[in-house]
Amino acid sequence: MRSFASDNYSGVHPEIMQAIMEANEDHMSSYGADPVSAEAESLFKGLFGKQAKIFFLTTGTATNTLILRHLCKSWNSVICSHDAHINVDECGSPENMGIKLMLAETKNGKITVDAIKPLIPAEPDVHRAQPAVVSITQNTELGTLYSVDEIKAICDFAHSKGLVVHMDGARIANAAAALGVSFKEMTVDCGVDVLSFGGTKNGCMCAEAAVFITPELGKDFEYIRKQNLQLISKMRYVGAQFKALLTDELWKRNAEHSNALARELAEKAGAIKDVNITRPVEANGVFAIIPEYAIEKLQERFPFYVWDDQTGEVRWMTSWSTTAEDIENFCIALKELICRAAPLPLPGKRGCSTNANNAPREKEILN
Amino acid sequence: MRSFASDNYSGVHPEIMQAIMEANEDHMSSYGADPVSAEAESLFKGLFGKQAKIFFLTTGTATNTLILRHLCKSWNSVICSHDAHINVDECGSPENMGIKLMLAETKNGKITVDAIKPLIPAEPDVHRAQPAVVSITQNTELGTLYSVDEIKAICDFAHSKGLVVHMDGARIANAAAALGVSFKEMTVDCGVDVLSFGGTKNGCMCAEAAVFITPELGKDFEYIRKQNLQLISKMRYVGAQFKALLTDELWKRNAEHSNALARELAEKAGAIKDVNITRPVEANGVFAIIPEYAIEKLQERFPFYVWDDQTGEVRWMTSWSTTAEDIENFCIALKELICRAAPLPLPGKRGCSTNANNAPREKEILN
Amino acid sequence: MRSFASDNYSGVHPEIMQAIMEANEDHMSSYGADPVSAEAESLFKGLFGKQAKIFFLTTGTATNTLILRHLCKSWNSVICSHDAHINVDECGSPENMGIKLMLAETKNGKITVDAIKPLIPAEPDVHRAQPAVVSITQNTELGTLYSVDEIKAICDFAHSKGLVVHMDGARIANAAAALGVSFKEMTVDCGVDVLSFGGTKNGCMCAEAAVFITPELGKDFEYIRKQNLQLISKMRYVGAQFKALLTDELWKRNAEHSNALARELAEKAGAIKDVNITRPVEANGVFAIIPEYAIEKLQERFPFYVWDDQTGEVRWMTSWSTTAEDIENFCIALKELICRAAPLPLPGKRGCSTNANNAPREKEILN
Amino acid sequence: MRSFASDNYSGVHPEIMQAIMEANEDHMSSYGADPVSAEAESLFKGLFGKQAKIFFLTTGTATNTLILRHLCKSWNSVICSHDAHINVDECGSPENMGIKLMLAETKNGKITVDAIKPLIPAEPDVHRAQPAVVSITQNTELGTLYSVDEIKAICDFAHSKGLVVHMDGARIANAAAALGVSFKEMTVDCGVDVLSFGGTKNGCMCAEAAVFITPELGKDFEYIRKQNLQLISKMRYVGAQFKALLTDELWKRNAEHSNALARELAEKAGAIKDVNITRPVEANGVFAIIPEYAIEKLQERFPFYVWDDQTGEVRWMTSWSTTAEDIENFCIALKELICRAAPLPLPGKRGCSTNANNAPREKEILN
Repeated sequence: MRSFASDNYSGVHPEIMQAIMEANEDHMSSYGADPVSAEAESLFKGLFGKQAKIFFLTTGTATNTLILRHLCKSWNSVICSHDAHINVDECGSPENMGIKLMLAETKNGKITVDAIKPLIPAEPDVHRAQPAVVSITQNTELGTLYSVDEIKAICDFAHSKGLVVHMDGARIANAAAALGVSFKEMTVDCGVDVLSFGGTKNGCMCAEAAVFITPELGKDFEYIRKQNLQLISKMRYVGAQFKALLTDELWKRNAEHSNALARELAEKAGAIKDVNITRPVEANGVFAIIPEYAIEKLQERFPFYVWDDQTGEVRWMTSWSTTAEDIENFCIALKELICRAAPLPLPGKRGCSTNANNAPREKEILN
Repeated sequence: MRSFASDNYSGVHPEIMQAIMEANEDHMSSYGADPVSAEAESLFKGLFGKQAKIFFLTTGTATNTLILRHLCKSWNSVICSHDAHINVDECGSPENMGIKLMLAETKNGKITVDAIKPLIPAEPDVHRAQPAVVSITQNTELGTLYSVDEIKAICDFAHSKGLVVHMDGARIANAAAALGVSFKEMTVDCGVDVLSFGGTKNGCMCAEAAVFITPELGKDFEYIRKQNLQLISKMRYVGAQFKALLTDELWKRNAEHSNALARELAEKAGAIKDVNITRPVEANGVFAIIPEYAIEKLQERFPFYVWDDQTGEVRWMTSWSTTAEDIENFCIALKELICRAAPLPLPGKRGCSTNANNAPREKEILN
Repeated sequence: MRSFASDNYSGVHPEIMQAIMEANEDHMSSYGADPVSAEAESLFKGLFGKQAKIFFLTTGTATNTLILRHLCKSWNSVICSHDAHINVDECGSPENMGIKLMLAETKNGKITVDAIKPLIPAEPDVHRAQPAVVSITQNTELGTLYSVDEIKAICDFAHSKGLVVHMDGARIANAAAALGVSFKEMTVDCGVDVLSFGGTKNGCMCAEAAVFITPELGKDFEYIRKQNLQLISKMRYVGAQFKALLTDELWKRNAEHSNALARELAEKAGAIKDVNITRPVEANGVFAIIPEYAIEKLQERFPFYVWDDQTGEVRWMTSWSTTAEDIENFCIALKELICRAAPLPLPGKRGCSTNANNAPREKEILN
Repeated sequence: MRSFASDNYSGVHPEIMQAIMEANEDHMSSYGADPVSAEAESLFKGLFGKQAKIFFLTTGTATNTLILRHLCKSWNSVICSHDAHINVDECGSPENMGIKLMLAETKNGKITVDAIKPLIPAEPDVHRAQPAVVSITQNTELGTLYSVDEIKAICDFAHSKGLVVHMDGARIANAAAALGVSFKEMTVDCGVDVLSFGGTKNGCMCAEAAVFITPELGKDFEYIRKQNLQLISKMRYVGAQFKALLTDELWKRNAEHSNALARELAEKAGAIKDVNITRPVEANGVFAIIPEYAIEKLQERFPFYVWDDQTGEVRWMTSWSTTAEDIENFCIALKELICRAAPLPLPGKRGCSTNANNAPREKEILN
């Protein structure tokens, strides 16, 4: 199967698999007290500072939810975007842990200080949940990016109101690569307090990290992790994944690859008649509206998701394992579906056989 | 490091690692909708019946806790042993999910119908938590085994009172191997309703399964698993672990190996002066009382746990990766520590140089 | 103090206090098994049908939250209005119990079928909270009313999608009196499944009822009530309050009184220069925008709440104990504050000494 | 009905009812910001010190559970007796809030330092719930009393281990009256940190207080109370109850009355053939074993509970409203049931017509 459904349809990058095998020697202490995990932790401290407290987990939902649970007292709330993964795609995990989400207005998945402001009460009120955290996703669920300045502005405002900032970084490598900044410049230097660092979507098997940049916020998180079912015993294999991902900038190589292929996909698919790219393509996700009749048939060959049932908008994700050939085959298939269904261009519209932007390549494809 | 601390200090069995690598091809649907997981599920159905509902998770604590959460309404309680892992070693996970445990009197970790009886109320009472589940551990946390008849008796009684039976099978392979029965004979045929099937301690990396033998009890468990942070995206790698474990009876080979070495360890260590084996050695755990002065020094070379701070009882676990050499080296070290500290036998006591049960080998060791 | 802050600033109606005293005889079974509570329950069944299951509680927040908890599995969500009390004013109680709220677009506090539709997924999805309940407030938090037909439309749609309907009736007596219908016509006959019936705001001391019109939904609610701290021991005194409230239609007399005074307040205050009534006045709440400089000074004499910090909109509530004199005194005070601050009308604007709508009465007031 | 089932079968003491009626004037701020509640709070501070933080609630289960929830992080546990109300009679409320109870061995409901010791771990362990609170009940569920010295010893030990002490004082007035000490001597001076102060069982309608003697422990408890459904709007009526209870030592008059009648009941009933008083009678509860054939027949006339289904032990509670006549009638009834069933004494046993301890009075009764 070749798929654009999600970066988690990909397998494990060979360098990471190699590290897993190398960790498979001898007896080691369980629950994270092993040398491989220690090495990985050390690499994280190299990226985020020695003060940072690092905890390894196995899913992104777990990392987000447990960080938020740890940052909130039961009467606190978390401000986030309508489109946030924590709001939409975690089966109510935050609420299941007692966390109220307060949804800020967003555009293309990004919240702003102006959207946060009205959600913060003038003074404490026992009848209302009290906001304690602003949670942003970088890159967003809609494939867009906060700039370093935008992140800084949110952190400054949140801190001025006594709130802390969490970043859901399920695809943080894609963001750093796309912005051309280090992890530190995009988090520590902006004032982000806690980060969900995602490895799985970027070539790991099951490796996520809760990074408490503000270390006192991470105090006792080990109990939260254990009690909430996220302390795996043979932790060395998670440590090994991160060790490989953070060695020789594998994270960046993988992210640059998938970002580049997303841009290529957007360009090529966007050049096809009746295909409209709906969001800025800033990382490894492409959102589009394509003719409804083409969706299911295309999904049969290349699985992907309809993002919005109301509008029919679809999402195509690339990953470290997507190939240039995948993009080509996908675009050929998409084009054929559309051209077969509507062979004759309406007067004044682009036809299937020509395309102003990308004509030469397109011909090639059709051959 | 060579360790007797826990079977989870071991690595991953080579056949399982091989299966993981073989699963690392191409794109596959995430969250369990992949062909490798389907194959593993099919192997489980071969063991527990086609009706069984199977869910893969990554930790034993998660599997136990989420099964119990799913079986209980908020006002229900679970009857278990004082020594149960769910009571002692899960950082209050069941209570964190709202589950009240009611502790039955036990001997060597095993509860009986007589111990359950007084915990079951004559009639419903809104002021009291209402028992809904009996949870037993097979083999127990104290290395002992329920016989098939004992399990059946508990199931029959529980069912007669409207309760269901959960088995914590973190080491179920050791139990089946030791009893010389199939998984089915020890669970389905006895009336067990739901099983936590453990793979991790028996050679997997992170593979546990919730097996709803009574299938209607598993309805909607997929939501509980997702919401409680246990649905990993690249599930194929868990599926691969189980596929290997359940192929060519690897589970049994591993379990028989660790059981045999535990017996050997008990025999050899038990023959050493001032070492008392405190529990029946029926699976892969050995409990002992050794001279207090020897504990820390021995732990430095071979990590293991003090099980009971009050009595000083220690626990030694063997695993698929324990070797006969490990046993020998451990016993040599233990013996040396004891003999050095007390070279001269008290009148009427065994000395270090003689041992009625095992004299020849011991000499060899000391050479 | 005379106040327009909330109907819960009022005391207990004399007929209700009388009933409380009459219940103060002899020993009675606790926790609701007393004859007074039985009588009250019987009156409720007269209103909602013999099939209904009735439970008494002591706060509106408790009644709403526990009903929703009982109706939802942990992965379910509740659809409600942005303005819903359960969303805004219960300190996150629903989320604290694990309930995700999904907010429908509203106008004047009322949700519509069209606003509910996009929140209901086409098919089950393990990654998303699954809506199970639509919760509406009658009369709404903004003083408006659903018509019987509007309620029926919501119920029909919800049922067609497999959802049940909860009505937060903290002020249900005001609604029934205003619409001129019976409780049954506004709930049972429309298809409402469960009702939070409020007594406290309508003259009781602390009396709320969970009315499961669809009785099977109320199964086991007694455990939820006890476990969640809402089973008071001397229940007879709650029973007594309801007995009085439901005798000789005291509920209606109280509600008609407060509704009428709200209309009067809206009329008189609305006639004052620079006072704008912002919402339809359909029950016992009046919303207005008044000059900012007048707010605090007026609050000093007659406490009331600023409803919306952003717009400065204020809320004035009347109750069974509000008097015509209260209204008059309040309007005098408001008028004086405004006129003192702005004695001279701008050219072309109403002055303080004249008012087209209500001139005679106004003069009288100023005298 | 005249009952010995529970002190909560009693009504409201006339002085308390009077105070409730007196509070029924005018409008008052809701949710506790009223002058009556302020007065009551002030009376509490007179008893427990100005530093104390006081919160009013409506049930004992709520007061215990919410205090414990507030004192515990999710991974903490509470050490208490097997017989503790929080363990047995609250439908799993503490566990429903995520609190693990660790049960200490007890005798007659009282735990000791020796029983607590083995439950406290030598060092923190992420796999185990960490004890944070010792909870004792004064007077105990079995009608016995901790002496001031015993309380002090428990507090000293708990504090030395970093734990805090909670006292469930559902019947604390009975305890203070019986010991002849002030509330302060029995709590503040001993080192108790937080107290559930019960009013309901001692003549109130529904009035309980969370008294944070160590005030920093009470920080933010207002959110916990609101969010967990225990902030009633017309709080003035709870304030009024406490105002009366703490005026002119009504609490003590009520408690001394019920204590005295319990002693009288124990004496008179204990003098009846085949009636064995099973526990020290130190407050207002009497535990006994009576002939099984007499239980149901006696309950028909005077409701009471069978405390222990296994042994048949019964419990009789007295209250402020129990009369000397109640005691007499009860003993007559009990004696008649026993004598009718067994008119002829066995050789060498006491007969029905004679009683060494209490012969004169008994005859009188039978006349």
